[in-house]
Amino acid sequence: MQIIADYLRDNKERLEATLFELLRIPSISAQTAHQADSERTVDWLVEYFTRIGFSTQVFPTIGNPLIYAESPKFEGAPTLLIYGHYDVQPVDPLDEWQTPPFEPTVRDGMVYARGATDDKGPLLAHIVAAEFWMQSENRPKINVKFFLEGNEEGGDNNITQFVHDNADLLACDYLALSDSSQFAPGQPAISCGFRGICGFELTLRGPKQDLHSGTFGGAVSNPATVLTRILASFKDADGHVLVPGFYDDVQRLSADEQAQYDALPFDDEEFYRGVGTPGGEGEKDVPTLSRLWLRPTFDINGITGGYQGQGSKTIIPAWASAKFSFRLVPNQNPDKLWESLEKYVADQLPIGITAEWKHFSHVPGFSVDTTRPCMKAAASAVEFGFNRSPVFIRDGGSIPVVLTFSQVLTTNVMMIGLSQSTDNAHSPNEHWSMADFYRGIKMAVRLWYELAAIGE
Amino acid sequence: MQIIADYLRDNKERLEATLFELLRIPSISAQTAHQADSERTVDWLVEYFTRIGFSTQVFPTIGNPLIYAESPKFEGAPTLLIYGHYDVQPVDPLDEWQTPPFEPTVRDGMVYARGATDDKGPLLAHIVAAEFWMQSENRPKINVKFFLEGNEEGGDNNITQFVHDNADLLACDYLALSDSSQFAPGQPAISCGFRGICGFELTLRGPKQDLHSGTFGGAVSNPATVLTRILASFKDADGHVLVPGFYDDVQRLSADEQAQYDALPFDDEEFYRGVGTPGGEGEKDVPTLSRLWLRPTFDINGITGGYQGQGSKTIIPAWASAKFSFRLVPNQNPDKLWESLEKYVADQLPIGITAEWKHFSHVPGFSVDTTRPCMKAAASAVEFGFNRSPVFIRDGGSIPVVLTFSQVLTTNVMMIGLSQSTDNAHSPNEHWSMADFYRGIKMAVRLWYELAAIGE
Repeated sequence: MQIIADYLRDNKERLEATLFELLRIPSISAQTAHQADSERTVDWLVEYFTRIGFSTQVFPTIGNPLIYAESPKFEGAPTLLIYGHYDVQPVDPLDEWQTPPFEPTVRDGMVYARGATDDKGPLLAHIVAAEFWMQSENRPKINVKFFLEGNEEGGDNNITQFVHDNADLLACDYLALSDSSQFAPGQPAISCGFRGICGFELTLRGPKQDLHSGTFGGAVSNPATVLTRILASFKDADGHVLVPGFYDDVQRLSADEQAQYDALPFDDEEFYRGVGTPGGEGEKDVPTLSRLWLRPTFDINGITGGYQGQGSKTIIPAWASAKFSFRLVPNQNPDKLWESLEKYVADQLPIGITAEWKHFSHVPGFSVDTTRPCMKAAASAVEFGFNRSPVFIRDGGSIPVVLTFSQVLTTNVMMIGLSQSTDNAHSPNEHWSMADFYRGIKMAVRLWYELAAIGE
Repeated sequence: MQIIADYLRDNKERLEATLFELLRIPSISAQTAHQADSERTVDWLVEYFTRIGFSTQVFPTIGNPLIYAESPKFEGAPTLLIYGHYDVQPVDPLDEWQTPPFEPTVRDGMVYARGATDDKGPLLAHIVAAEFWMQSENRPKINVKFFLEGNEEGGDNNITQFVHDNADLLACDYLALSDSSQFAPGQPAISCGFRGICGFELTLRGPKQDLHSGTFGGAVSNPATVLTRILASFKDADGHVLVPGFYDDVQRLSADEQAQYDALPFDDEEFYRGVGTPGGEGEKDVPTLSRLWLRPTFDINGITGGYQGQGSKTIIPAWASAKFSFRLVPNQNPDKLWESLEKYVADQLPIGITAEWKHFSHVPGFSVDTTRPCMKAAASAVEFGFNRSPVFIRDGGSIPVVLTFSQVLTTNVMMIGLSQSTDNAHSPNEHWSMADFYRGIKMAVRLWYELAAIGE
């Protein structure tokens, strides 16, 4: 495998120029004024894939196009699907950028540009790896497909429906993406799971109109008062969710896996400095990182009802409402939670109060067993690229598109982080380490080889 | 006392015309465009008082003027102060009025006009009683003062401060007002107390900014979640307030008084039909009327925090806030409650949450012992005017100006209802029974006589 190091050395300037070319196109998906830029990005990528010998298809959507590209087929070989997105976040506040967001500039080994780390840079690492293998006589016996979207950061393209409708086209044995972070500078990581979410809006209605709280207080069910009582019954002060059956199906980690998470260095003080508080409530005797990644929880996201202006207005409001969500871990079933929750709330409704529900995302949690062959292959690829073994990490928030892939295509999902959480993704002065670009290419090159070797 | 019946018969048309004249002036205090109308009302009243032989003073305020009028003095006689207000509510929605609000019209024995029942009509009944006695040779040995304001329904006139500053001018042994309702048609009533109020706004602050609930949920104290938990700790589902010491000083009624309230006919079904619910939660084994009048309670008046727009936003909000109030019964001390409450909340605050308080009205409850001589006198006066004994009732909401009078001037407060709760005060088609006008005059005439007779 020595040859990739030579390739990188010989093509350094061209690869850097290629990255900068891609970063110069302002493919901001949230702003329709940039639609033509998205189309330019699609053209640029299709041309690239065609040049290296991939066949491509472009699918129009209600948003930006989806790009599909595949390598020449090895009959009987396994298939790797690589996902990425070519769109970027908006750039405001523009005046906080030290150099213009679409004029890539290198400072201290970092390229500063919108999309550098999220996700054009990491995506290009995988495409350059394809370029490398396509010009090599030793291309591993693996079929590689790319599936790229342009609405990850904004707008909508109905990608979930597309994946369901095109499961044959996208069929694969492995799925890889690099749209996540390393654990820390110098410590690469593979994300092997994320929490799900089950979100609701509960509106309680009481009197037919706001009532004078002096004239009626004491004999009328107050929707705001009842709402706080019901919401308070969802979780206790020890961070324990009280909805019946909530913990029944919670995934139990192997001792090895738990030990691996417990061994990760995590600085509580630094974490809470970021939050702006001296600490936070949560489950007793559970380390902070496990609270964030491995344990389900409940949070109110918004609450409203009654008089909210200046001063006081002594009313019993006609209604009160809250938006809230449960973060779920793998194995917990959102639909089962909903069923239990609806009964739990109905049982608590006093006379004079009716409940109305709205449902938001119901996404289960997801995890991949880190002992799977593909995870070992990914770890080897990372070790090759970074000269350091990766750690396995989780994500506290859900990644719905990955869940769709895992449900429709394959559960062999490798989320290989090439970014740092300090790269200012979504913020001014987004940047990415040029060293991570080259490490990422090496990792991606090796990934083909390692996956092809599985089962040989 | 036969003579008042004759007087009413002989002066019927003039008195009706006088009432209508007063009702034609649109003295809406909430709308500054009607300031000149308030001044016309003041002129009209001052002229009336002067004509019947009262001396008057008009006090400018930051709002509408205060009117003071007094009868020629009997040295050594007790003094009755009569309070009323000459301003009225706004009239919108105007198109719901069957006849224009400032063109008094009689239909089915009711005069329809803004201010008819609240409070120009009942006030005029007391003024006509003064007119009657001033032309009589038998004027009872009692000094009568009127103290009228023009900002009861809107605006501000600093009346509390005025009462404190002019306690000598307003000094009295008895205070009467007719700005409340009878218990039901055909059943006159004297209000002998009302609940106090202790209102707050509590804001809880947590993270320095809204946080992603996936990334941070489980390890960060959520101000909205904590707020619901704290508010839920204020009152249980049985309507019992849980703040320590809350019930310590609650006034205990005599068995007689409680029995009197329990004997009042109260239709729960009709009450809840008005609320629009099949019932309401509250203290177990306490009749509805007692829940409203005689028991303290807690209500959330408004609550806000986090995302309140359409759809969902999965955040941990940086802050959440609620406005709430306790209704207090006589003897409960708002300041003692505040002290206990602040500690109760502080003890529940988890790490990562800070509390900020705002204070609204802190008004204690008030009641008059119904066995006092003045209450018996008032009851006799009502019986004379209405040909029926009044019942004693309470009010669930506080009447701050009366509390000020009771604190500064006298606790001999007689709140004699001449209106009906169905008179549409504050609503379109406000009206008042012309029969109640004449009954009210008879009552007010007799009141002078009964009060003068106390201690004779």
